[in-house]
Amino acid sequence: MRQFVVVGHDAPTTPEFSLDDLAGGAGRLDVLCRCVSAALFLSHDLREDVRVHLVLDDEFTVVFDGATVRRLNPDERSTAALVRGALDERREAIGHEPVETSPGVSLYRFGFEATLDRLADEGTVVQLHEDGDPVVDRPTPEEPIFVLSDHREFTESEAAFLDEVADERVRLGPRALHANHAITVAHNYLDTDGFERY
Amino acid sequence: MRQFVVVGHDAPTTPEFSLDDLAGGAGRLDVLCRCVSAALFLSHDLREDVRVHLVLDDEFTVVFDGATVRRLNPDERSTAALVRGALDERREAIGHEPVETSPGVSLYRFGFEATLDRLADEGTVVQLHEDGDPVVDRPTPEEPIFVLSDHREFTESEAAFLDEVADERVRLGPRALHANHAITVAHNYLDTDGFERY
Repeated sequence: MRQFVVVGHDAPTTPEFSLDDLAGGAGRLDVLCRCVSAALFLSHDLREDVRVHLVLDDEFTVVFDGATVRRLNPDERSTAALVRGALDERREAIGHEPVETSPGVSLYRFGFEATLDRLADEGTVVQLHEDGDPVVDRPTPEEPIFVLSDHREFTESEAAFLDEVADERVRLGPRALHANHAITVAHNYLDTDGFERY
Repeated sequence: MRQFVVVGHDAPTTPEFSLDDLAGGAGRLDVLCRCVSAALFLSHDLREDVRVHLVLDDEFTVVFDGATVRRLNPDERSTAALVRGALDERREAIGHEPVETSPGVSLYRFGFEATLDRLADEGTVVQLHEDGDPVVDRPTPEEPIFVLSDHREFTESEAAFLDEVADERVRLGPRALHANHAITVAHNYLDTDGFERY
């Protein structure tokens, strides 16, 4: 299982946003939607062994499960519609219980720390960061949980929390990438690991 | 200079399409827009040494030049608006002369073969293909021109033409990727080449 946690700092927490303005009024939800696509799609296939967790303004987390998700398409708009549908049912997400708002899409009333606390036992928490160690020098974790930020830096408190819980801090190359591009590169490293000739 | 040629088989050739339906009525223009973003964006920066050529239904080609492009954002919708703006001026693209329709965005009345003919002298034509040679076994071309298809396979005639003009046929990993993800991985290979420790 590979997991990706993406922190959306300006992301909506109610469904009152327009699908026509994802990069504006919807708080750069376009970034998070591209991350879902990068995490889950192969050519004509889905990565069933992947989950993506979108943290929305530290209040809700929407989880896409590659094993069970349906009605997912690679474009930003349709993914944003699934997020909006999840937020439509936000009153059903009570305490620690998520609500499945579409097949394979669940909403938790969890912010960043609660999401990482929930996941930390499930694998190796890897912060993708431009000051991290080069990924080529690292052994490949079997159950990685990659943590990324959207178009903004992690806040000071998020960074401090990550320093506590992250098992590794890794960079993927010499140039700083958008979060969705970093997910694609991380997948490629894992896909090709151990394949001398594939 | 790195260049990417992406063939859009169902892409629009007139500006009469809706930005609200890129994955439907606009012939999967969403795919091509993601390719532009993957080719040109770094985190808080643009790749100035990159050009992207979107072939629209074998009739027009829209070129985005990283060195001069302005008003480009990473979301699909705003990139599609630049393509639509280019098609608005399609009558100005006459013969071999392109028209610059926005800073760093040009429209050619060129289909797939004419575009490749125009570019072939500028570098090494590399077809990205799931049956190609593993990229790790290849030397890195200095001026690569990667050729990719959108959500469809290359047609038989396109594939035959590519067989003639491509200098290399390369695959990027054991799993077949969407075109935009392949662009991201290709960049990462080139970015990290020669960096034992970056």
